[in-house]
Amino acid sequence: MQNGLVISLDGMGGDHAPQIVIEGAHLSRQKYPQATFIIFGDENKIKPLIKKYPGLEAVVELRHTAERITSEDKPSIALRNGRNSSMRLAIDAVAKGEAQCVVSAGNTGALMAMAKFVLKVLPGITRPAIATALPTKVPGHGAVMLDLGANVECDPKNLLEFAILGGVFSREILKIAEPRIGILNIGSESMKGHEVVKEAAELLEKASHLPGKYIGFVEGDDIGAGTVDVVVTDGFTGNIVLKTIEGTAKLMASLVKQSFQSSWLMKIGFILCLPGFVVALPAFIALKKRADPSSYNGASFIGLKGLCIKSHGGTNAVGFANAIGVAADMALIQFNEKIAQELERMGIGQTQPETVEDTAA
Amino acid sequence: MQNGLVISLDGMGGDHAPQIVIEGAHLSRQKYPQATFIIFGDENKIKPLIKKYPGLEAVVELRHTAERITSEDKPSIALRNGRNSSMRLAIDAVAKGEAQCVVSAGNTGALMAMAKFVLKVLPGITRPAIATALPTKVPGHGAVMLDLGANVECDPKNLLEFAILGGVFSREILKIAEPRIGILNIGSESMKGHEVVKEAAELLEKASHLPGKYIGFVEGDDIGAGTVDVVVTDGFTGNIVLKTIEGTAKLMASLVKQSFQSSWLMKIGFILCLPGFVVALPAFIALKKRADPSSYNGASFIGLKGLCIKSHGGTNAVGFANAIGVAADMALIQFNEKIAQELERMGIGQTQPETVEDTAA
Repeated sequence: MQNGLVISLDGMGGDHAPQIVIEGAHLSRQKYPQATFIIFGDENKIKPLIKKYPGLEAVVELRHTAERITSEDKPSIALRNGRNSSMRLAIDAVAKGEAQCVVSAGNTGALMAMAKFVLKVLPGITRPAIATALPTKVPGHGAVMLDLGANVECDPKNLLEFAILGGVFSREILKIAEPRIGILNIGSESMKGHEVVKEAAELLEKASHLPGKYIGFVEGDDIGAGTVDVVVTDGFTGNIVLKTIEGTAKLMASLVKQSFQSSWLMKIGFILCLPGFVVALPAFIALKKRADPSSYNGASFIGLKGLCIKSHGGTNAVGFANAIGVAADMALIQFNEKIAQELERMGIGQTQPETVEDTAA
Repeated sequence: MQNGLVISLDGMGGDHAPQIVIEGAHLSRQKYPQATFIIFGDENKIKPLIKKYPGLEAVVELRHTAERITSEDKPSIALRNGRNSSMRLAIDAVAKGEAQCVVSAGNTGALMAMAKFVLKVLPGITRPAIATALPTKVPGHGAVMLDLGANVECDPKNLLEFAILGGVFSREILKIAEPRIGILNIGSESMKGHEVVKEAAELLEKASHLPGKYIGFVEGDDIGAGTVDVVVTDGFTGNIVLKTIEGTAKLMASLVKQSFQSSWLMKIGFILCLPGFVVALPAFIALKKRADPSSYNGASFIGLKGLCIKSHGGTNAVGFANAIGVAADMALIQFNEKIAQELERMGIGQTQPETVEDTAA
């Protein structure tokens, strides 16, 4: 492990790269002044951007590559032909020990395939998962959900491993001392759901030394209610649920906006409210920050020997800076060492991981 | 088919029954003045309630039963032992042709098991589904999603049938002339997802005379965006997605409320806004109505020979009235006759339904 904090960045991944990557790195320095960056990508595009932000050049090592993975590339093709892409080289830097973590806003499937191939799965874990923190009604109390799409089909043992990985994430990143772990299902009664969730429930009930407390099945409305801290699910359901949360939040915001625009009375009311809005501005900003999706940007690929964070492809610089923050936090608390300790405590750790071919999403 | 509109009500189903059932029936008469009701349940409790609402007694036939299905009853037990329950008798009234539709806020699993057993599946349909309309960003333009929990595991043919049922629902109930039908998945590319959705996509691409246009895979955030009219999914995913939508809407409302309560500045700002709020009140009420879950209450069990509507168990009287409205609308447009015409047009209708034992959820 190096001194300090070195973060590897895929300079060319995402809809608005490289702009958001460079600006995001700049923004993240406020919270992580000790951070230095290795950035991979087209130096003709990236170099001028770096110069725009005072002091950034001194903490960035720019490594040129003209190749990049696009959002259309199939994971298998990206893995085979993308050896010199900015994404692959950014991951390689973690495998070589040059950086403690990598952040990319590029193609999720390609990133997961490359990260699995290059970084390998942790001993005791069969498959890595994608995890992210979500807001809940309880202030300052986030929930973590996994898997969000790395594993379309899961067996009960996969779900048990997700519970362990998520429990450590909740404790170490979200600072919840005794995380409540639940399996996402269509009802809380034990007879509900399909065989995989029923068998996973049995495994979790029997498991000793879990990093948290297994509380049984939870439902979709428990996620935001703050009644569960670790939401365990397969990647098909998890991905759809995550996008449903995003879509519903957008819908609600849109309904409010439409109602303000819909009538003259509402417009006059809005103008009359302006002095009140100005007085309350700081509280509104706090609300916006709490409800803003970019505040929750940064999905962690967990269960791998290196730290890899996926930023939303369409994010802005603030969102990318948040993803860098997730990576930095995980590196600083030595997340993978914590996972290894947990697996040892549970007596797990000798299992052979599946081969990369089997697990490629 | 009777003259007029006769609606059968399970007087004892739901957390706040019989109050919400009786008040809901009363409220629904504003929109459906021609409606009459057969209400099943405990006459000692229901009779005094009916007398509270002017004119209601004249349009209600109250049939006494002391038995009821509780929310804890297993569907199989309810089916075997609940022959004299208010829920079962309310369904029987539809099977006997005494009413055109039945509404219950009781135990979903028991209601589906009984409805399948008593009403039977429509010719050409293998399994009934639970469907509901959801709000979208586009004013006046709802989306229908199915299945919401009747079928935990589905094969591709089930999903094709859901597409047909949902297409007719969208056209006849939501008044969308050419519904866009999509399969819920983790990405829009054809390589995404598990085998069932991939094979269902092939079936839908090949299907001729669909009641709508198949647009491919859709994602969780398409539901609220108004980019799809019929969201086809298995009952496991659909149920979790529905509850996630409810939970996220509650979370958003809670975040706004908390921010108003969180600071003195926000409270002062709120007071300064009051004149504006008063002016804009009608628009706020319209917004609340549009965003209020009870405006969307009433999930239809479709694919059965009789019309059966499930109200949310925890709903209020307004929500129950809305569920009655869904039932009334489906009865008035003769929904099942429309389904039969559609199946005939597609050349489907000779398939033998599965036996009740196989399909009990």
